[in-house]
Amino acid sequence: MSRAFNFSAGPAALPEAVLLRAQSELLEWQGESASVMEISHRSKAFVALTERIESDLRRLLQVPDDYAVLFLQGGATQQFALIPQNFAAPDATADYLLTGHWGVKAQAEASPYVHANIVASDAAGKFTTLPARSTWQLTPGAAYLHVTPNETIHGVEFDETALTNLDDVAVIGDVSSTLLSRPLDVSRYAMLYGGAQKNIGAAGVTLLIIRNDLLARQPRPLAKILTYAAQAKEHSLLNTPNTFGWYLTGLVLQWIDGEGGLAAIGARNQRKAAMLYAAIDGSGGFYSNPVDPRYRSWMNVPFVLHDAGLDAAFLSESIASGLVSLKGHKAVGGMRASLYNAMPEVGVQALVDFMADFAKRKG
Amino acid sequence: MSRAFNFSAGPAALPEAVLLRAQSELLEWQGESASVMEISHRSKAFVALTERIESDLRRLLQVPDDYAVLFLQGGATQQFALIPQNFAAPDATADYLLTGHWGVKAQAEASPYVHANIVASDAAGKFTTLPARSTWQLTPGAAYLHVTPNETIHGVEFDETALTNLDDVAVIGDVSSTLLSRPLDVSRYAMLYGGAQKNIGAAGVTLLIIRNDLLARQPRPLAKILTYAAQAKEHSLLNTPNTFGWYLTGLVLQWIDGEGGLAAIGARNQRKAAMLYAAIDGSGGFYSNPVDPRYRSWMNVPFVLHDAGLDAAFLSESIASGLVSLKGHKAVGGMRASLYNAMPEVGVQALVDFMADFAKRKG
Repeated sequence: MSRAFNFSAGPAALPEAVLLRAQSELLEWQGESASVMEISHRSKAFVALTERIESDLRRLLQVPDDYAVLFLQGGATQQFALIPQNFAAPDATADYLLTGHWGVKAQAEASPYVHANIVASDAAGKFTTLPARSTWQLTPGAAYLHVTPNETIHGVEFDETALTNLDDVAVIGDVSSTLLSRPLDVSRYAMLYGGAQKNIGAAGVTLLIIRNDLLARQPRPLAKILTYAAQAKEHSLLNTPNTFGWYLTGLVLQWIDGEGGLAAIGARNQRKAAMLYAAIDGSGGFYSNPVDPRYRSWMNVPFVLHDAGLDAAFLSESIASGLVSLKGHKAVGGMRASLYNAMPEVGVQALVDFMADFAKRKG
Repeated sequence: MSRAFNFSAGPAALPEAVLLRAQSELLEWQGESASVMEISHRSKAFVALTERIESDLRRLLQVPDDYAVLFLQGGATQQFALIPQNFAAPDATADYLLTGHWGVKAQAEASPYVHANIVASDAAGKFTTLPARSTWQLTPGAAYLHVTPNETIHGVEFDETALTNLDDVAVIGDVSSTLLSRPLDVSRYAMLYGGAQKNIGAAGVTLLIIRNDLLARQPRPLAKILTYAAQAKEHSLLNTPNTFGWYLTGLVLQWIDGEGGLAAIGARNQRKAAMLYAAIDGSGGFYSNPVDPRYRSWMNVPFVLHDAGLDAAFLSESIASGLVSLKGHKAVGGMRASLYNAMPEVGVQALVDFMADFAKRKG
């Protein structure tokens, strides 16, 4: 048995260097005579760790000073429910742009708490593109506009340059599967958030970056534990956090730094995605990806074989070749290769080599 | 550097055997060619793990069939806010019994969502006993009665035999720091819940055991992710859970089994607590614990030195003797020794030996 090239959409592969470091200090961390998961979240050593993690993240992403950085629990899905409660009054309207499965879920989970208006949706096009900006039906005075810059299942990604003429609205982005994969202009958003289990660490940690004016809203009575402003005031230590998850995120941030930061990581991710899309597009139709080339995700590449009858062979042979977790999500079928930061270029090369060989043998 | 006897109140010490096992398979788990934290929560291997964990827990605690078992996120504190939303209409009353810090917090966090009536409180007695059952001011028709069978900070513990004449009300117990420390009659409660970071695993997992009739209530519109019934239906896999935390909980449950189950664990915990309370009570007033002997916690033993001016020396010398995390919570001062399952009897023996020696030298 040995470690494979792991294309899981999440929980996803972690850098091997991160796992080796965590393994080496799992029973004794620093001078604590205990594991990092066995010490108080209010101890000096753990608080110092949280401060280092926040400062590393702020530097890597160039987070402006008027944004709070939170590390909470519950995944992005829990935030689908908490965002309207924190930022919109019950009779307000919030706008949702739908470019895939996760935007749809975000809108549904918000609906018990706010009028969740759909600004535009590519449901009819099976979520293969970003609806043209000119078609968006924005609500004047909306509490916020929610977008999903990368759809993990449908493989549709857009960057902040798509967010034009939106100066009047607080834009909130679920960036679960794109954050830390490339440079990003945080100031184009009022809030960014995402689960850690793609590029930020392990499942069980949720990162939120929230502008202070949004935090100050608090439009309805809420328990303190569900109030982002209260969490910000306590630096996410309002109650016991997922301490081991934080620690892993800290190791991942140090690893990103060592790889050259987000510019270097982004350039590598662009090369990886280009290599795989070229293999798909150059397969003479054996493989295909349905997404509008302008909005193809660098992180999640869904593709189908021309004959779904070959899927089972593709999967079993890929596993035998050391390429795992390529099965597509049931919503779109076929295959999906997730190319998060921890996937090296040699892993993508191994995948495209396997795909070419498979197509040659079965074509 | 080596591992110390760790008396942390939580996140607390884990059994060393659990950490060694986790360390050995951190990069490659079973036949997955990946870490357990790098695979999909919907993969066959992970789903099988969750099924084993649930069945091990049900067997150890003898959970009746009409209770659901959930593994969620957010800690007990998040449940303080979700319990009223899941089980009480906005105009209903819920009863809260206050025997310490955590009961107080539970009542405060419920207050935005329900009339949170205080049934009885020992605040005036500085939370050193359980108010007599005859003094409880129960609300007829209350949605539920919330109790905290072990107060981690104040060290007040009672078992289900204290819950008399309560057949008409759904009793909900926050058992964060007592669950799995001894046998418990689940059927006396409508719901039990607690953070994992004491006896169940690592921080970031929250265990809930909920009777089906309570789950069926759903008295107000809620997002699916915040609805216990929806989580139960999906076996806690409504969204990506803290997969590594679940795995650790599974290892802890296997360890408890190997130690002889809850009867053996409970007998050992009783001996450990008796040894420490005897040392305190037999110190001629050098050390003291203020809790009513009928309700002294087996898990969390707060004590003060007769002269607080000796606290700093006690702490620094105890650390030098390989006994860590003995500093008391700021709410009560002095010291606190938490004696969770992972603390061996030799650790408690080392503590009482140190205490006797310290008292002899400083007395």
